[in-house]
Amino acid sequence: MKASSLGERGIIELIWSVLGDRPQNNPAEMVLPLPDDASAVKMNDGNYLVLKTDMFVRRTDAPKGMTHHQMGVKAFAMNISDLAAKGARPFAFLFSLGLPKSYRVSSIRSLIKGLSLASAEYATPILGGDVGEAKDLIVAGFLSGAAKSLVRRSGASPGDTLAVTGRFGNTASAFKILFEGKSASSDLTHLLLSSVYNPRARLAVGLAVAGSHAATSSMDSSDGLAYTLNGMAKASGVGFAVDSLPLSNGAMAFAKLHGLDPNGLALFGGEEYEIVYTIKQGGWSFAEKAARDAGGELIRIGEVVNGKGVFLRDHKSENPIPDRGWEHLRAT
Amino acid sequence: MKASSLGERGIIELIWSVLGDRPQNNPAEMVLPLPDDASAVKMNDGNYLVLKTDMFVRRTDAPKGMTHHQMGVKAFAMNISDLAAKGARPFAFLFSLGLPKSYRVSSIRSLIKGLSLASAEYATPILGGDVGEAKDLIVAGFLSGAAKSLVRRSGASPGDTLAVTGRFGNTASAFKILFEGKSASSDLTHLLLSSVYNPRARLAVGLAVAGSHAATSSMDSSDGLAYTLNGMAKASGVGFAVDSLPLSNGAMAFAKLHGLDPNGLALFGGEEYEIVYTIKQGGWSFAEKAARDAGGELIRIGEVVNGKGVFLRDHKSENPIPDRGWEHLRAT
Repeated sequence: MKASSLGERGIIELIWSVLGDRPQNNPAEMVLPLPDDASAVKMNDGNYLVLKTDMFVRRTDAPKGMTHHQMGVKAFAMNISDLAAKGARPFAFLFSLGLPKSYRVSSIRSLIKGLSLASAEYATPILGGDVGEAKDLIVAGFLSGAAKSLVRRSGASPGDTLAVTGRFGNTASAFKILFEGKSASSDLTHLLLSSVYNPRARLAVGLAVAGSHAATSSMDSSDGLAYTLNGMAKASGVGFAVDSLPLSNGAMAFAKLHGLDPNGLALFGGEEYEIVYTIKQGGWSFAEKAARDAGGELIRIGEVVNGKGVFLRDHKSENPIPDRGWEHLRAT
Repeated sequence: MKASSLGERGIIELIWSVLGDRPQNNPAEMVLPLPDDASAVKMNDGNYLVLKTDMFVRRTDAPKGMTHHQMGVKAFAMNISDLAAKGARPFAFLFSLGLPKSYRVSSIRSLIKGLSLASAEYATPILGGDVGEAKDLIVAGFLSGAAKSLVRRSGASPGDTLAVTGRFGNTASAFKILFEGKSASSDLTHLLLSSVYNPRARLAVGLAVAGSHAATSSMDSSDGLAYTLNGMAKASGVGFAVDSLPLSNGAMAFAKLHGLDPNGLALFGGEEYEIVYTIKQGGWSFAEKAARDAGGELIRIGEVVNGKGVFLRDHKSENPIPDRGWEHLRAT
């Protein structure tokens, strides 16, 4: 059997089934039980050390037209986003860089400048790394952060408010321009492509919302909104009723132009580094103000309900939102 | 210009020249200044958090005949060795796994079992990871550890004793069997190949020697003994006089069999996960006993002297040991 018949998620399950056989790796005993966005260890001073690795592979993670500088920023932001979702302040970044022998030195320099820019943007020093020879350009990032308390992927209760830190659909629209040859006006094209070329992580908002102590659960949305909502609902053993999808203006314009369903663009895109939260009853105004004070926003999209699964509801009907998103290593 | 014209070390220099332009990445302000085996951050409780990433790439790091189980153990041990050299006790391992789509699931399972075995051997839980699609099998390991104090790459003074945690030359001999078709008796072949298939890191000895507070500097020797000695001498601005090279019995037997220089096998091999130490005057008996009590040994090979460079001396002459070792990404 080949890796592609399991796909990324199947391989991750395989890995944890093997590791779980040894007591020191028992997932149930972890501070952030699997699956979650990052790993955590309780430190002597009572705070949590939060650790994350996310691997950027040029062939699968750099859409056509992305510069090396943008790749460096993205490789950094991917890791920041997961710590932001857990409410952890990052303090050290390391990376292992895989390079083909024939790679241009000027491209490597641009990539490192991108990493360095992101390091300044997120106020997180780059403390070390390793370089090796690989067939692909690879940046395996390793991020360490600290948190007084952790927002877990599970923890939502019926009655909680479901919210997101931004609007969705620009990246899915951009992928249709890049990979399906669809077109749009020059302004709209620029807006949409910028979403995939210049991803940014919601660090300030993530820290602010965690600091409001109003979030009951959270998850980074970069595997796609539908996948994220389903993963969170399942982790908490609850259902999510979505009343209004957070559609971006760009996705609405692009959908209208091409007769597409804008909901599909928002739900099944991926590579959108927003955070999905559930906010406890009575906590909304604190969380919403914290996000606003941090220069961002928290958009209410629905509520947590009894039951299971995720559905889009209006006054007439309820339509299930399937647990589907983009996945590496899948045979297609 | 291509990556191969700079080589691994040239690329690392390029990276730090770009990163050093930003104050948050100023290498001079780092707890473990560059170059060193790992990175460190001072924590609230006064201890150091020590961080390391080392990337295992099958194509360059798995010699012919290595099993996937052995690859998993090696990918883990590579990272442990650097923390051991710094006197840091590891407490969390994460890894980013790059896999070709067509990779066999049974091979992935064996690899993970190897990582899991090493995790038990070094009492270091595996807390998380990432999986992505790559053209090579890649295991980018990320290790976190803690230390009360740090043994740096610099810090040696004239009069210190130069010592190593084991004998050298088996891996260079094994590479001659694997890549140059040289032969040896079945017992000797088995002994030599085992050194490259089953590398182990000197964690217990590293922690014990650090605990003796007798070491003034240290470095993991996996890039080769000659390279390591030169790197340490340069970092401290001193010279190293080697009186007796720590030759393994296997390398002496193999050298005799094929008319080779055993010193060359010991100096220019690489992939030997020993630690090289300088031990302060008056500290030798403490360091040596600490290593022995931890089940290992500390072998005196020379002393630190005024001047610079590394040389092999006997009663007649002094011969320089060149700063050369194995390097990834070099055009050959």
